[in-house]
Amino acid sequence: MSKEAEIFVGKKPPMNYVLACLTAFHEGASEVVVKARGQSISKAVDVVEVIRRKFMPDAEIKNIDIGTEEIPLKDGQGSRRASSISIKLGKVKKSKAK
Amino acid sequence: MSKEAEIFVGKKPPMNYVLACLTAFHEGASEVVVKARGQSISKAVDVVEVIRRKFMPDAEIKNIDIGTEEIPLKDGQGSRRASSISIKLGKVKKSKAK
Repeated sequence: MSKEAEIFVGKKPPMNYVLACLTAFHEGASEVVVKARGQSISKAVDVVEVIRRKFMPDAEIKNIDIGTEEIPLKDGQGSRRASSISIKLGKVKKSKAK
Repeated sequence: MSKEAEIFVGKKPPMNYVLACLTAFHEGASEVVVKARGQSISKAVDVVEVIRRKFMPDAEIKNIDIGTEEIPLKDGQGSRRASSISIKLGKVKKSKAK
Protein backbone atom coordinates (compact mmCIF):
# COMPACT_ATOMS: atom_id res chain seq x y z
CA MET A 1 0.00 0.00 0.00
CA SER A 2 1.41 3.43 -0.79
CA LYS A 3 -1.36 5.82 0.20
CA GLU A 4 -0.39 9.44 0.64
CA ALA A 5 -2.28 11.71 3.02
CA GLU A 6 -2.22 15.50 3.18
CA ILE A 7 -2.63 17.52 6.38
CA PHE A 8 -3.07 21.28 6.08
CA VAL A 9 -1.88 23.10 9.20
CA GLY A 10 -3.98 26.17 10.07
CA LYS A 11 -5.27 27.93 13.16
CA LYS A 12 -6.05 24.99 15.47
CA PRO A 13 -3.70 23.91 18.29
CA PRO A 14 -0.64 21.97 17.08
CA MET A 15 -1.71 18.75 18.79
CA ASN A 16 -4.80 18.54 16.56
CA TYR A 17 -2.54 18.25 13.52
CA VAL A 18 -0.18 15.83 15.27
CA LEU A 19 -3.16 13.55 15.92
CA ALA A 20 -4.42 13.95 12.34
CA CYS A 21 -1.03 12.79 11.03
CA LEU A 22 -0.82 9.85 13.42
CA THR A 23 -4.35 8.83 12.45
CA ALA A 24 -3.46 8.98 8.75
CA PHE A 25 -0.45 6.71 9.31
CA HIS A 26 -2.56 4.41 11.46
CA GLU A 27 -5.17 4.16 8.69
CA GLY A 28 -2.57 2.90 6.26
CA ALA A 29 -0.89 5.95 4.76
CA SER A 30 2.78 5.32 4.00
CA GLU A 31 3.47 9.01 3.52
CA VAL A 32 1.92 12.10 5.07
CA VAL A 33 2.51 15.56 3.62
CA VAL A 34 2.23 18.39 6.15
CA LYS A 35 1.46 21.73 4.46
CA ALA A 36 1.14 25.27 5.77
CA ARG A 37 1.16 28.89 4.65
CA GLY A 38 2.31 32.16 6.18
CA GLN A 39 2.46 32.31 9.97
CA SER A 40 1.41 28.66 10.27
CA ILE A 41 4.72 27.51 8.78
CA SER A 42 6.37 27.54 12.23
CA LYS A 43 3.52 25.43 13.58
CA ALA A 44 3.91 22.90 10.76
CA VAL A 45 7.58 22.44 11.69
CA ASP A 46 6.59 22.03 15.36
CA VAL A 47 4.00 19.40 14.38
CA VAL A 48 6.55 17.37 12.42
CA GLU A 49 9.12 17.63 15.21
CA VAL A 50 6.64 16.49 17.88
CA ILE A 51 5.64 13.50 15.71
CA ARG A 52 9.26 12.48 15.20
CA ARG A 53 10.39 13.10 18.76
CA LYS A 54 7.48 11.86 20.84
CA PHE A 55 5.28 9.55 18.81
CA MET A 56 7.05 8.05 15.81
CA PRO A 57 10.83 7.89 16.21
CA ASP A 58 10.83 5.75 13.07
CA ALA A 59 9.26 8.52 10.96
CA GLU A 60 11.56 9.99 8.38
CA ILE A 61 11.52 13.36 6.63
CA LYS A 62 11.59 12.49 2.96
CA ASN A 63 11.38 15.95 1.48
CA ILE A 64 10.89 19.61 2.38
CA ASP A 65 9.77 22.21 -0.14
CA ILE A 66 9.15 25.91 0.24
CA GLY A 67 7.41 28.18 -2.21
CA THR A 68 5.12 31.11 -2.76
CA GLU A 69 1.37 30.84 -3.29
CA GLU A 70 -1.08 33.36 -4.66
CA ILE A 71 -4.07 33.58 -2.34
CA PRO A 72 -7.22 35.19 -3.79
CA LEU A 73 -8.57 37.97 -1.59
CA LYS A 74 -12.01 37.47 -0.06
CA ASP A 75 -13.54 40.40 -1.96
CA GLY A 76 -12.56 38.71 -5.22
CA GLN A 77 -10.29 41.57 -6.23
CA GLY A 78 -6.70 40.54 -6.78
CA SER A 79 -4.62 38.32 -4.57
CA ARG A 80 -1.83 38.39 -2.02
CA ARG A 81 1.29 36.29 -1.85
CA ALA A 82 2.16 33.99 1.01
CA SER A 83 5.11 31.70 1.60
CA SER A 84 4.31 28.02 1.94
CA ILE A 85 5.98 24.87 3.15
CA SER A 86 5.40 21.22 2.39
CA ILE A 87 7.05 18.52 4.52
CA LYS A 88 6.78 14.91 3.44
CA LEU A 89 6.96 12.37 6.27
CA GLY A 90 7.46 8.69 5.59
CA LYS A 91 7.08 5.70 7.84
CA VAL A 92 10.18 3.58 7.95
CA LYS A 93 9.17 -0.06 7.82
CA LYS A 94 10.28 -2.05 10.83
CA SER A 95 12.06 -5.28 10.00
CA LYS A 96 10.92 -7.13 13.11
CA ALA A 97 7.31 -7.99 13.88
CA LYS A 98 5.66 -6.40 16.91
CA MET B 1 35.89 30.74 -3.74
CA SER B 2 33.43 28.71 -1.72
CA LYS B 3 32.71 30.85 1.32
CA GLU B 4 29.62 30.03 3.31
CA ALA B 5 27.74 32.69 5.26
CA GLU B 6 25.15 32.19 8.00
CA ILE B 7 22.24 34.52 8.64
CA PHE B 8 20.20 34.03 11.79
CA VAL B 9 16.62 35.31 11.40
CA GLY B 10 15.21 36.86 14.58
CA LYS B 11 12.94 39.74 15.56
CA LYS B 12 13.92 42.40 13.03
CA PRO B 13 11.85 43.16 9.91
CA PRO B 14 12.24 40.55 7.13
CA MET B 15 13.88 43.02 4.74
CA ASN B 16 16.87 43.39 7.13
CA TYR B 17 17.64 39.70 6.66
CA VAL B 18 17.04 39.84 2.92
CA LEU B 19 19.64 42.61 2.69
CA ALA B 20 22.05 40.69 4.94
CA CYS B 21 21.84 37.69 2.59
CA LEU B 22 22.26 39.79 -0.55
CA THR B 23 25.28 41.50 1.05
CA ALA B 24 26.84 38.14 1.92
CA PHE B 25 26.47 36.95 -1.68
CA HIS B 26 27.81 40.27 -2.93
CA GLU B 27 30.86 39.94 -0.69
CA GLY B 28 31.73 36.62 -2.27
CA ALA B 29 29.79 33.94 -0.42
CA SER B 30 28.79 31.12 -2.73
CA GLU B 31 26.30 29.73 -0.20
CA VAL B 32 24.20 31.43 2.45
CA VAL B 33 22.49 29.43 5.19
CA VAL B 34 19.35 31.08 6.60
CA LYS B 35 18.54 29.82 10.10
CA ALA B 36 15.65 30.45 12.49
CA ARG B 37 13.95 29.07 15.56
CA GLY B 38 10.37 28.98 16.80
CA GLN B 39 8.04 31.70 15.53
CA SER B 40 10.77 33.14 13.31
CA ILE B 41 10.69 30.06 11.07
CA SER B 42 7.87 31.56 8.96
CA LYS B 43 9.91 34.74 8.56
CA ALA B 44 12.96 32.76 7.41
CA VAL B 45 10.88 31.13 4.66
CA ASP B 46 9.55 34.58 3.65
CA VAL B 47 13.11 35.93 3.51
CA VAL B 48 14.26 33.13 1.21
CA GLU B 49 11.20 33.50 -1.02
CA VAL B 50 11.68 37.27 -1.37
CA ILE B 51 15.34 36.76 -2.30
CA ARG B 52 14.47 34.17 -4.93
CA ARG B 53 11.48 36.01 -6.36
CA LYS B 54 12.58 39.63 -6.33
CA PHE B 55 16.33 39.88 -6.10
CA MET B 56 18.12 36.73 -7.19
CA PRO B 57 16.09 34.62 -9.62
CA ASP B 58 19.27 32.59 -10.12
CA ALA B 59 19.47 31.62 -6.44
CA GLU B 60 18.82 27.97 -5.76
CA ILE B 61 17.64 26.19 -2.62
CA LYS B 62 20.27 23.53 -2.06
CA ASN B 63 18.98 22.02 1.16
CA ILE B 64 16.34 22.47 3.86
CA ASP B 65 16.65 20.92 7.29
CA ILE B 66 14.36 21.06 10.28
CA GLY B 67 15.17 20.00 13.80
CA THR B 68 14.73 20.65 17.49
CA GLU B 69 17.10 22.71 19.62
CA GLU B 70 17.46 22.89 23.38
CA ILE B 71 17.52 26.52 24.45
CA PRO B 72 18.88 27.23 27.95
CA LEU B 73 16.49 29.34 30.02
CA LYS B 74 17.68 32.76 31.11
CA ASP B 75 17.64 31.89 34.80
CA GLY B 76 20.09 29.09 34.09
CA GLN B 77 17.68 26.42 35.28
CA GLY B 78 16.83 23.85 32.66
CA SER B 79 15.96 24.49 29.04
CA ARG B 80 13.06 24.58 26.64
CA ARG B 81 12.76 23.02 23.22
CA ALA B 82 12.20 24.93 20.03
CA SER B 83 11.88 23.81 16.44
CA SER B 84 14.46 25.13 14.04
CA ILE B 85 14.97 25.45 10.31
CA SER B 86 18.06 25.80 8.19
CA ILE B 87 17.76 26.72 4.50
CA LYS B 88 20.85 26.65 2.33
CA LEU B 89 20.79 29.02 -0.62
CA GLY B 90 23.31 28.75 -3.42
CA LYS B 91 24.19 31.12 -6.20
CA VAL B 92 23.95 29.50 -9.59
CA LYS B 93 26.96 30.56 -11.57
CA LYS B 94 26.14 32.46 -14.72
CA SER B 95 27.90 31.20 -17.81
CA LYS B 96 28.15 34.61 -19.43
CA ALA B 97 30.37 37.37 -18.13
CA LYS B 98 28.75 40.53 -16.74
